[in-house]
Order: sequence, then structure tokens, then C-alpha cells
Amino acid sequence: MATIALIHGPNLNLLGVREKSIYGTVTLALINQRVIEVAGSAHEVRPFQSNYEGALIDFIHEARTWANGILINPGAFTHYSYALRDAIAGVALPTVEVHLSNIHSREEFRHKSVLAPICVGQICGFGWRSYTLGLQALLDHLAGG
Amino acid sequence: MATIALIHGPNLNLLGVREKSIYGTVTLALINQRVIEVAGSAHEVRPFQSNYEGALIDFIHEARTWANGILINPGAFTHYSYALRDAIAGVALPTVEVHLSNIHSREEFRHKSVLAPICVGQICGFGWRSYTLGLQALLDHLAGG
Amino acid sequence: MATIALIHGPNLNLLGVREKSIYGTVTLALINQRVIEVAGSAHEVRPFQSNYEGALIDFIHEARTWANGILINPGAFTHYSYALRDAIAGVALPTVEVHLSNIHSREEFRHKSVLAPICVGQICGFGWRSYTLGLQALLDHLAGG
Amino acid sequence: MATIALIHGPNLNLLGVREKSIYGTVTLALINQRVIEVAGSAHEVRPFQSNYEGALIDFIHEARTWANGILINPGAFTHYSYALRDAIAGVALPTVEVHLSNIHSREEFRHKSVLAPICVGQICGFGWRSYTLGLQALLDHLAGG
Amino acid sequence: MATIALIHGPNLNLLGVREKSIYGTVTLALINQRVIEVAGSAHEVRPFQSNYEGALIDFIHEARTWANGILINPGAFTHYSYALRDAIAGVALPTVEVHLSNIHSREEFRHKSVLAPICVGQICGFGWRSYTLGLQALLDHLAGG
Amino acid sequence: MATIALIHGPNLNLLGVREKSIYGTVTLALINQRVIEVAGSAHEVRPFQSNYEGALIDFIHEARTWANGILINPGAFTHYSYALRDAIAGVALPTVEVHLSNIHSREEFRHKSVLAPICVGQICGFGWRSYTLGLQALLDHLAGG
Amino acid sequence: MATIALIHGPNLNLLGVREKSIYGTVTLALINQRVIEVAGSAHEVRPFQSNYEGALIDFIHEARTWANGILINPGAFTHYSYALRDAIAGVALPTVEVHLSNIHSREEFRHKSVLAPICVGQICGFGWRSYTLGLQALLDHLAGG
Amino acid sequence: MATIALIHGPNLNLLGVREKSIYGTVTLALINQRVIEVAGSAHEVRPFQSNYEGALIDFIHEARTWANGILINPGAFTHYSYALRDAIAGVALPTVEVHLSNIHSREEFRHKSVLAPICVGQICGFGWRSYTLGLQALLDHLAGG
Amino acid sequence: MATIALIHGPNLNLLGVREKSIYGTVTLALINQRVIEVAGSAHEVRPFQSNYEGALIDFIHEARTWANGILINPGAFTHYSYALRDAIAGVALPTVEVHLSNIHSREEFRHKSVLAPICVGQICGFGWRSYTLGLQALLDHLAGG
Amino acid sequence: MATIALIHGPNLNLLGVREKSIYGTVTLALINQRVIEVAGSAHEVRPFQSNYEGALIDFIHEARTWANGILINPGAFTHYSYALRDAIAGVALPTVEVHLSNIHSREEFRHKSVLAPICVGQICGFGWRSYTLGLQALLDHLAGG
Amino acid sequence: MATIALIHGPNLNLLGVREKSIYGTVTLALINQRVIEVAGSAHEVRPFQSNYEGALIDFIHEARTWANGILINPGAFTHYSYALRDAIAGVALPTVEVHLSNIHSREEFRHKSVLAPICVGQICGFGWRSYTLGLQALLDHLAGG
Amino acid sequence: MATIALIHGPNLNLLGVREKSIYGTVTLALINQRVIEVAGSAHEVRPFQSNYEGALIDFIHEARTWANGILINPGAFTHYSYALRDAIAGVALPTVEVHLSNIHSREEFRHKSVLAPICVGQICGFGWRSYTLGLQALLDHLAGG
Repeated sequence: MATIALIHGPNLNLLGVREKSIYGTVTLALINQRVIEVAGSAHEVRPFQSNYEGALIDFIHEARTWANGILINPGAFTHYSYALRDAIAGVALPTVEVHLSNIHSREEFRHKSVLAPICVGQICGFGWRSYTLGLQALLDHLAGG
Repeated sequence: MATIALIHGPNLNLLGVREKSIYGTVTLALINQRVIEVAGSAHEVRPFQSNYEGALIDFIHEARTWANGILINPGAFTHYSYALRDAIAGVALPTVEVHLSNIHSREEFRHKSVLAPICVGQICGFGWRSYTLGLQALLDHLAGG
Repeated sequence: MATIALIHGPNLNLLGVREKSIYGTVTLALINQRVIEVAGSAHEVRPFQSNYEGALIDFIHEARTWANGILINPGAFTHYSYALRDAIAGVALPTVEVHLSNIHSREEFRHKSVLAPICVGQICGFGWRSYTLGLQALLDHLAGG
Repeated sequence: MATIALIHGPNLNLLGVREKSIYGTVTLALINQRVIEVAGSAHEVRPFQSNYEGALIDFIHEARTWANGILINPGAFTHYSYALRDAIAGVALPTVEVHLSNIHSREEFRHKSVLAPICVGQICGFGWRSYTLGLQALLDHLAGG
Repeated sequence: MATIALIHGPNLNLLGVREKSIYGTVTLALINQRVIEVAGSAHEVRPFQSNYEGALIDFIHEARTWANGILINPGAFTHYSYALRDAIAGVALPTVEVHLSNIHSREEFRHKSVLAPICVGQICGFGWRSYTLGLQALLDHLAGG
Repeated sequence: MATIALIHGPNLNLLGVREKSIYGTVTLALINQRVIEVAGSAHEVRPFQSNYEGALIDFIHEARTWANGILINPGAFTHYSYALRDAIAGVALPTVEVHLSNIHSREEFRHKSVLAPICVGQICGFGWRSYTLGLQALLDHLAGG
Repeated sequence: MATIALIHGPNLNLLGVREKSIYGTVTLALINQRVIEVAGSAHEVRPFQSNYEGALIDFIHEARTWANGILINPGAFTHYSYALRDAIAGVALPTVEVHLSNIHSREEFRHKSVLAPICVGQICGFGWRSYTLGLQALLDHLAGG
Repeated sequence: MATIALIHGPNLNLLGVREKSIYGTVTLALINQRVIEVAGSAHEVRPFQSNYEGALIDFIHEARTWANGILINPGAFTHYSYALRDAIAGVALPTVEVHLSNIHSREEFRHKSVLAPICVGQICGFGWRSYTLGLQALLDHLAGG
Repeated sequence: MATIALIHGPNLNLLGVREKSIYGTVTLALINQRVIEVAGSAHEVRPFQSNYEGALIDFIHEARTWANGILINPGAFTHYSYALRDAIAGVALPTVEVHLSNIHSREEFRHKSVLAPICVGQICGFGWRSYTLGLQALLDHLAGG
Repeated sequence: MATIALIHGPNLNLLGVREKSIYGTVTLALINQRVIEVAGSAHEVRPFQSNYEGALIDFIHEARTWANGILINPGAFTHYSYALRDAIAGVALPTVEVHLSNIHSREEFRHKSVLAPICVGQICGFGWRSYTLGLQALLDHLAGG
Repeated sequence: MATIALIHGPNLNLLGVREKSIYGTVTLALINQRVIEVAGSAHEVRPFQSNYEGALIDFIHEARTWANGILINPGAFTHYSYALRDAIAGVALPTVEVHLSNIHSREEFRHKSVLAPICVGQICGFGWRSYTLGLQALLDHLAGG
Repeated sequence: MATIALIHGPNLNLLGVREKSIYGTVTLALINQRVIEVAGSAHEVRPFQSNYEGALIDFIHEARTWANGILINPGAFTHYSYALRDAIAGVALPTVEVHLSNIHSREEFRHKSVLAPICVGQICGFGWRSYTLGLQALLDHLAGG
């Protein structure tokens, strides 16, 4: 049985509200619920969202004491937060990076992830399903992949 | 009648103290007051300053429920905060970006604004008047400009 | 009382005709009129438009003898006319650069202004109001800022 | 019920042989089998591998007549085959791009995918499970996403 | 029946004189004559050459009232005159860009055309025949291509 | 009388099917027919299409024994196939490069042709007429230009 | 006698835990203690760590009222926090930048410090001793160095 | 005996007025006079200044019929006027490029001359003496160098 | 005794025909013969040429079962075929890259080899002797270097 | 007890003479003396200065036989002497790089050190104290850091 | 009366021997003689040539005690010797940089001079006359400009 | 019979000592001996090593009087010594460049050789055998290619 830190970066609290043509109408609460459903009774999922880079780092540090892995959508921090990258590298927990949209077909600045090099893998473009696929990938990885 | 979110980014609380040769001696309180005067009784202005990117994002999210537009001096976040950009794009409020100094005649890294592409327009170089001009531009824009 | 040189660069004579979805339906004559109205009886505004870089430079040189400041929309010269830049720097008149559209949200080549570094400030994105805001900014600057 | 074209690019026939420290010991036959198992009886999967760019393009063209979607690991073609990109864009079939390894943590030239912008999404870094996750993502997408 | 503005940029008046090894010995008058012959009695061609960017822009503006399309060899303006580009985009006349020499096999700076993105098409490398081919292409385009 | 190798690169077999908004509804067979018509009885045209870079190179090599010139639409190979470039340079046959669409107004990566520097000239943007114009240009060139 | 603000950026609270092969096993508490020891009774040292950019900026602002200089290890903020840079420039306190590891021999993105240009100097690569050397350098500088 | 075209680019009519700290107090008339004095009775010098790129090109074309060489200070056109470059290359007159200031120690954009590659040589940094040195260099070159 | 795969990339079948001023008059058959002569009776050499990237990859894969090393002139694939690179890396056979001409003194795009980083070494510039030198180098390397 | 090679690169013999506003008035002899004082009787310091890259390399080679570490101010060689870098890497002695001025706040070309990646650490910006701090850092490192 | 250090960089001892098509047939001795002749009895010229960067730096340092200015052709050091640049800046003697050939019309790497920014001016392209023109320019500058 | 200048650049005197994992254990003396053995009695080889760029240039100049060709391993000068390049170009002796290691698979800065464009060819990656292969290549070249 694994405990997973499910982390959402800045602006993701607006999901279902913000730019629906890009991100769809699903809310963050619903995404959390679906990830928890997929995890089932065998695994625990602890969701966390913040618009504060510092709060995300604190949460990752703390997760070191109870989590087996991290499932993270870093939002716009994907593209410049080396501090977040260092936090993940620092706690040395297996991490899967997910994105709702296909970041490679949007603006140039969204093509690059500064976190990806220290993650197990990256999944993007499948809406909320990027999260459930990511959870699966992470659990498989933890199971000895 | 419009309600305007007046947002100041990091270090602007130091105005009147910090590098006077560049930014002048006017304080933030005075700038807020002048913007409020220009708005007059016809419009409401709610000022907010923070050195926390997360706090600025939270305020922008919340402004969605009461503001008609945003007047923002993003300070140094101008040059790298894609999270702030996403916040503004997410709430879909008309936004005017202002700067006290002419960012195009300062250091190379200050020439580029990552927020400008999703704003209505940009005003820079006129000291505290960049704000009052910006308010006017925003009100005109809201009036159907 | 100030005398202002109001300068329009190439293709702006087409305003109200050209690419209306970007520039709107206001003509250049109307813009001149509105700037003159804002100037009121206290200030004089002398408008000039040319598609010739040389004619614009000549006009700027000549303005040295009668103008207190320059309000300029350099059109496409914004992006490559170092000669125009040198002309403005040469006459040493306070200059405000304006653009009808938000140049930062259009094609990449429009993001950079070679004139901005030697101007007092830049205003863009507010249609014809960029001009009236610019005049105000320039007059304030001349009044001792 | 959907029919899926499962396409493997150059050198993937060597799987289980080639650079095991990076790609693991699973063979291509085994990957095909696992994808087919996940597809179950509800869906059909037609695998194809070639080291010829032209053969891959031919197969994609032909798939237009029988496939509902494409699951592709383009191998090294990921990084330069604009012809493959055009083939996928040309047949207009929903396509999911997968990679065994995390391409973002390997050599610089592997960070960029010229195919990604015209795919639904991308999954990388989970070994053979990138394929089964990709199939799932593709089937979900086809099911109405 | 169509009326075509045939425009030649800077230095093309020197044709038949200048750098014959690159441009050949045909004069501009002869090129105009050949284009007019190809146009025949069915179409009118009005040639214009200037070394002044402003004069070319004025001519393009004016052509708006009588021309159905533009055939242009922008000469060296090809590589930097965004003002010429805006003029063509402004009058919204179908435009074909031609060059005597193959600009892609000459100096690096000649490889890029800032006008091409807003033209119907580009023809280069066939000497004076680039013009007659261009006219044909333009007439076909106007005929409903 | 000339014999012309008419070569179509990858994905052009899909013409009339693929992305009609960009490429139109004309099929490759129809293009071949029109080129042959323009060639008339005076000249022979031998069409060839392949999605294999190697097959195109082989055909070019072989054409050395019977062709007087090459008319080629290299498709996506335009942007990276230095092997195709070397093949054309190797057989030393006069070559005209054509494109259906205006490659200069599409994605950045389509702006550069690695073949153009060793061709006589380039024609792009006129749909199937790029081919017939290209044939004419090639025949004129062969006739002594 | 001087009072020194000793500032640690994001993730440095993990010292002694995080990536020991790079950063060693010394904890932050121990580093603070050693710096205080070196300062001796002659000088006061006030340590502060936060993972929040905003909290670091607030602390720097406040230090303006009691500190004579700043000793800072900005962690990953080194590479992108122009806001931190502006905070330091704003309070105009002499600042020394230190790093545990040699940032010039690690990943490319760690080679550049956006803070360095406004600091007195930079010391990196000597583990916790970078701090004690930095304190000494700062005290010497304050002493009139 | 040689006849020399002495050409001054945009803004040089302002000499003695414009930015004296960079360009000094000597007027253009005085420079012309000094060049003529150095030429003496043995050579003729015909000065020309314009702020119009087109006028400079026309003058250069015309000089083909009476000049033996060109002495030119292209002003800001130095950095982008490929049309001026083509004009000089077109008339094939030996040309010497001069600048009052040392262009290599000013703004980055002034470091590059697009004309220099087709000139005999370049002299910069010696105030009005750049002209008299340039004349000497040109006359020596014409005398058989 | 070693068996060597001698591989020639695209267009090398034209040797002795193609651009003799660069590549000389020696045919591929002659090169093969000379390499075989140098190998003598002690070693076997199996030559292969193809213009198909896929065929080269297939051959390299197959060589895994019988070759001790690879001697390859990748032709134009040198500069972009990451698939070829992966094939060589995949079979893990010691490989020596050779070129007839000095690729570092030709066009810019020929200066970079994407294969070189996974080869033992590179020899270029000595005509057909690059091959015989390369064979020697490879045999020495196999002999324990 | 350690023996330290104290190496000064080109132009440092001018210290106390050259550009005092940047480097101060302390002479090289005085710096050597201060470093020796800090080393005390416990350690030996052997200073060497040369304007010859080759002489510095020779000295480093020779130091291999008697030194325990290197303290070096490479002067302008910092920015391009890969030979010096190779020399240091070759002798494999722990090396500390020092600079009098803050190289990160001077000209762009001084921001990059080609030696830094193979040094233990770098200290810059503290005038002659950079040397004494550097010695301390080096001795600590040798003591088991 | 002035004393001038006349300095020649690497390979210039070969003048009259090396690549005559570029540098002509005049020897270094002859150039020295001509410079001395131009200096006449009023001024002293002390020539020096070396292929050692260190020797040139030593000479420049020493010239500080007897020279009023430097006339230098840095040869290939022009393009990378920051040490030479620092030497000239260090002795603070007015310096004129000369080149025999027009460095702006040769290979790309010769277009940039790392010394030019700290020189009074630059003269290139006039063969040995670049030296005599340079001497004159230097003497004029010393005479008070 | 040929006389060959065998030149070794900086740090190569350390061979057999320096970074054995990269360069192996063979000393420079041994390399010289082996090259001399391969040259046999038919040819003379004169070895020279220096860490001084100037000494290498002097040696090359002098070699003009007795050598028929140059075999050179420029060490780190490979990457920046344009002076060495000019020396080789100046004496016009056929030159072969060799490297012990495969420079294309090491650090980025080692991928580029500024000497290669003016050499006959380049051999790298075969340890000391790069030298003997290089000698052979040079002798063959001298024998008439």
C-alpha cells in the first residue's frame, strides 16, 4: 500500500472556471475525487493545491515523512521554478509530472519543463485523465516497475 | 460604475525609499491615493500589494467576484512569473500593465514582459502618472472604448 | 503653454481603412482632432504624417526650433529605424512613443522597439486613446513631472 | 469498438537487446502482446515496426482506411521527421506519442519532439507501461474524452 | 480584366548595368515591356520603380483605388522593410513576390523575406522570367485560382 | 525536346485528402496530368512519388541517364533531407523546387529549405499552379534562359 | 560592531538530508552556529530561512532597519528571482552571495546568478565554509576594505 | 585627378548641434570644407547629405557617371540599409566607410556594419579627421594602392 | 581475425561521377576493393551501400550477428540521422566514421556529425585513403588499442 | 603542512597602477606578502606571475612535484584559455579561483570562466581579500573540508 | 613631440611572404620604415613584433614609461586576446587599432575585435597605408583632437 | 623523401601522466618514437612541443624553410587559437590535425576546431595511433594524393 502526495500548482484551483476551451469544465475537487477512486482502498492519496511556490515546497518537504511518491501538475511553475525542482530532487521521492493540456502544442515557453529531468516520466494532453494515468504509472513504478 | 483591482508586485512597498534616482520619492500610499482621486466617486479602487507571488495570484482569483478590471504593476514578476500571467488569463478580467520607469531603457532582462501579451495594453516611463494614465485607459476600455 | 509635434509613421494615413480588425475604424484625421481637443487652447499640436523615413527625420529636425516635445507613433519603423532613433536623440526633445495596438501580443518582430530606449515612456494597446493618454503623459512630463 | 494502429519507429526491433541499461529487457513482441491484452476483446490492435521512414508513412496512410487512432513510439524520428508529422496530420487520426525512457532527462537533442504539437498527448518515462498507459489514454480520448 | 501594379524596389533601375554576373544584362524597361506583352490586351500593367521606401508605400496605397493585384520585386527591402509589408497588408491586394536571382543561394541575409508571409506566393531564381511567371501566377490567382 | 523528372516527396500521394484547407482538393494524378498537358507533345514528363527518401534518391540518380531537368516538390524533406540535396547536386541536373502552399507564411520550421541553395529557383504558394509555373520556368531555363 | 542578516533560500532547511553527495551532511542549524561563532561577540548574526520568495523579500526589507550587511545563499532563486535582486538593490545593504557547491561545475542553468551583479562578491564551492568565508569577506568590506 | 562623392547619411546635418559629447562641435559644412582642403586643387569633392535612403541611393547611382570613388558616413543606415549596400555594390565604385565615433565602443547595435563587407576599408573614431584620413586612404587606393 | 561491416550512406554509389572537384574520380567499387586489399586475408570486409536510411539500419542490426566492427561513411545522414546513431549505439559495435572530404572546411551544416559522439573516432579529408586509414584504425582498436 | 602555488595571470603585475577605480591601489607584492602572512609558518606559499600563457602552464606542470594545491587569479585568461584549464585538470591539484573584482557585474564577456568547472570553488569581488579568503578555503579543503 | 609604440601581433613577421593575395608584398621592415618616415623628425617610433601574447603584453606594460600612444595591428589576437585588451586598458595609453585587410569582408570570425572597445579608433582595409593613416590619426588625437 | 614537422600543443608534455582515463598511459617521447618508426628511413620527422602559443608559431614559421608538411596535435589551442591557424595558413604547408581522444564526444567546447578549415584533414579518437595514421595520411597526400 502506497501513500501518494497529489500536488497542484498555481491557478489550478480555478479549474472548471478558467479558460474552459483549453482546460475543460472539470473542477479540481472532481479531479481529486477521481484520482482517489482510481487509487481505491489499496492506496491513500493526499491532495494539496497552492498558488505559493513556498507552500508547495514546504508540502513536498513534509511529504518526505509519509509519502511513497508524488503526482504533480506544477502549473506555470513547470517552466521556471528551479526551487520546486530542487525540492523534489531533495526529498528523493519518485515523481510523475502531469499536465491537462498538451504543453508541446501551446506557446513556445510552455514546451520546456525544468522539472521533467528529475521526474520518472511525464504525461500530458489528456485532460483530467492525465492525472489518473499518472497515478497508475506512479503506482506501477512503486510496485517495482 | 466600475470596481478596479489595483495591484502592486514585489518591492513596491519600498517606494519612496528604494533607489530614488530611478523610482522617485513618491510613496505607495500616495500613488494609491492619487489613483483613487482620479477614479473619483464614480468608481471604486481596491489596492493590494504583496511580495508573495502566491498572494498576488490569490488576490487576482478573488477579484474575479467583484472587479471589472485590473491595474497592475507586476514589479520584477513582469519578467518571469508565468503563474501571474496564467492567473490574469484565468480570471479573464481586462488588465492594464504599468511601470514607473521606462523598462525598455534599463537592463536587458527588463525589456521583456511575460504578462504583456495577455494584457489590453502597457504604459511605462511616466513615474506615478503611469498609474493614473493606466486607470484612465482601463476605464475607457471598460466603457466600451 | 507647450507646442507638440504629433508624428505618425508609415501606413498610418490608411487608418480606418487598413486591417480594421486590428486597428479599428477611426481615421487619422479624427485622431489628430481628438489630440488637439485634449490639448485644448493651452497647447498647440502640429500633426505630421509621412511614409518617408527621411521626411519624418526632416520634420523632427525642424521641430527642434519650435516644439517642446514629440508624440510619435513610428508605425513599422518602430522595429528597425535606427535613423529615426538618432533623429530623436539628436534633437533632444522629450518624446513619448505610442501604438494603437498592443505590440507585445502580435508577431514576434513587433515586440521590440528600437526607439523606446531613448523615449520618456511608451503607451500601447488602447487604440486612438493611446494618443490622448500619450499627450497627457507628455504634457505632465513637460510640466515638471 | 476501436481499431488501433500500434507503430514502432527505427531500432525498436532491437528492444531487449539494445542498451538495456536505458531501455530494459522487454522485447517488442512482449510489448505488442501487453498492449493487445490491455485492449482486450473490445478493441483491435495492429502492430507495425519499421526502420524505414517511408514504410511508416505508408502504414499511416493506409491506416486511414481502418484505424480509429494511432499509438506511436517514433524512436529517433521523434526529433527530425517532419515527414512523419505531416503523415499523421494528413490522415487526421487521433495520435498518442509514447517513449520508453524519459526523453527530457537524456541528451539535449532528445528533449524536442517535432511530432508532439500535432498529437493529442505525450507519455514518456515508464518503460513498456508508457505503451499501455498510452493505449488507455487513446481509447478514453476516442470514447469522447 | 485585371489591372496590375508592377513594383520594383531600390537599385532595380540599374538593371543591365549592375553586377551583370548575378543579374544578367536585361534592363528594367525590357522587363516591363515583357510583362506587358504577357499581360496582353486583356490586362493592364502599371510599372513603378523607386529607390525611396516612402514612394513605394505611397504607390501601393494609391494602387488600392485602381489595382486588382501587385507584382513586386522589393529588392533589398525584402530583408528589412516591415513598413512595406504593412503597406501591402494594409491595402489587402493579392501580392506576388519575385526575385531575379535565387535569394536562397546567396548571402545569408538574403535568405529571409519579411514580406513573404503576407504574400500569395514567391518566385525566385529565373531572371526576368521570374516576373512573367509571377504575372501569370497572379492572374491565375485573381481568376479564382 | 526535353524529358523532365517530375518528383513528389512524402505525403503528396494524399493530396486531395490531406488537410484540404491548406492544400486544396486537387489530387496528385490531376497535377501530373496538368503538368503533362502543359509540357504538350514537345516534351516528356515522367512523374514519380514516394514516401521513401531512398526511393527518391534512387530515382534522381537514375534520372541522370534520361532526364534534362528535375521539377520537384520535396514535401517535408525540404526542411532536413541533406541526402536529397546531395543527390540533386550529384546528378547536376537543373532543378526547380515547387511548393503548393506559401511555406514562408506557415510554421517557422517550414521557412527554410535545405535544397533551395542548389536549385535554379523556387516557386511556392500557388497551389497546383506552382507546378505548371515551375515546368515553364524549367523549360525556359533549359532553352537557354 | 555589525549586525548581519544571514539568509537561506528555498530547500536549504533540508541540509544534511538532501542530496548528501552534493551538499554534505552538515545541517542548517550547524551552519548558523558556525557563522555565529566566527562572528564572535563583536558582531550579531540573525539567521532566517524560508521557502517563500515573498518571505525572503519581506525579511530583507525589514533588515533595512537593523542590519549592516547581508550574507545570503539564495538557493535555486539564484537563477531566476529578479524580485529578490530588486529587494537587495532596494535596501542598498552590502551583500555577499554564497553557495555550498561550485555552481559553475554543475548543470548549465546553475552557472548564471541574477543576483551576483548587485552583490559585493560571490563565494562558492567550499561547503559550509563558503558561509564563514563570506561572513569574513562581508565584515572586512564593512570595515572599509 | 579624381572626383570624389562625399556622402553623409541621416542626421549628420545636425552635426555641431546633436549630442556634442559624442560627436563634437564641428559642423557638416566645416567637415566638407576640410575634406575639400585636403583634396586640394588636384581633386574634386562633391558633398551630399540626405536623411532619405532613396536620395542617397539616387545620388550614388548618378555618381557612377562622374565619380572615381565614394567617401561615405552612412549614419544609422550603417546598421540596416541593405539597399544602400546594394547601391554601392551596383555602381562598383571604390568606397571608404567613415564614422566620427568609434562604433565598436558604443551600443551593441552599432558594432555591425552591413556596408563594410563591400567597402575598401573602414575608419572610425577620430571625429572629423575620420573623413580626412578616409579621403587620403581613398585617393591612395585610387592611385594604385 | 575480424569481420568488418563497410557501410556507405546515400549518394556514395555516385562516386566517380558526382561532383568530381570535391570527391575525386575514384568509384565506390574501387574503394571497396582497396579496403579489402588492406584487410588482406586476415580479415573479412563486407561492403554495403544504400540510399535508404532504413536499409542502412537493417544492415547494421544484422551485422550484430557477424561483424566485429563498423567502418562507415554516413554521407549526408552524418548531419541529421539520429536513427542511424541509435542503430550503431544499439548494436554496440566499435565504429569508425570516415569522410572523403574535410567536412570542417565545407558548408556550415557539414561541420556537425550527430554520429561522432558514439563512434570510436573520425577521419576526414584524405579522399579514398580516409577509408583505408579508418580500417587500420578500426583493426588496431579491435586488436586491443 | 601544505605548499601552495600562488599564481597570477596576465597584467596582474600592473596592480596598484592599472585602473585603480576597479582594482584598488594594492600592489602584487603586497598581495603576495599578505597571503604569506595568512599562511603563517604552518604553510609555504610560492608566488608566480607571468603574462605568458605558456609560462603559467609550465609552472603548473612543475608544481605537480611540490604543491598540494593551487590558488590562482587567471586574469583575462579566465575567459578563453582552455589550455590553462587543461593544465590544471592535468596535474589534478585542488585549485581555488579568485578575482579581485566581481566579474559578474562587469562586461558580459567577464561573466564566464572556462576554468571554474574544474576548480574547487570561486571567490570574487573582495579586492585583495579574495586571495586571503581563497587561501583559507583552499587550506580548509586540503584539511579534509 | 611624441613617442609611439608601434606593435605588430602574431604572424606579421611573415608579411611579404604569407598569403600575398590578401596581404600584398610589402614586408614588415618596409612598413616600419614608412611609419617612421611619416613620423618624421618630430616624433619617435619604436617598432616591436612578437608571436607571443606574453611578449606583447610585457612590451605594452613597459611602454607605459616612455610612450605617448600605441599604434597596434594585433593580428589574430584581435579576435580573442582579452589579455591584450586588459594590457592596453591597464597602461591607459591612447591606442589606435589597424589592419591591413578589411576584416569586415573576410571570414565571420574576423569581424569582431575584442580590443576595439577600448581603442580610440580603428582603421582597416588600406594595406600598409592603414598604418600611416593610423599614425596620423594617433598624432592628431595626441595633439588634442 | 619528406621532412615532417611533428608539433604538439600545450599540456601534451604531460602525456602518460595527465588524466589517464582519457588520454592513456603512453608518453610523448614514445609517440614521437613511434611516428619516427613509421616514417622509417625514407622520411625525417622533427618533433616539437611547447606550452607557448608564440613558440609554436615561431616553429611553424621556421619550418617553412625545411618541412614538407605538418602533423599537429594543437591541444586546447584547437578551440581558440586563430593565431596558430594564421601561422599554418601563412606558411602554406599541407597540415594534418590529429587528436588522441574523440573530441566530438567530449565537452561541447571541444567539438569545434578553428584550425580544421585550413587543414587537409582531421583524425581523432584513436589514441597515439591518431598520430601514425595522420603521418601516413600526410605522406600519401604529399606523394600526390
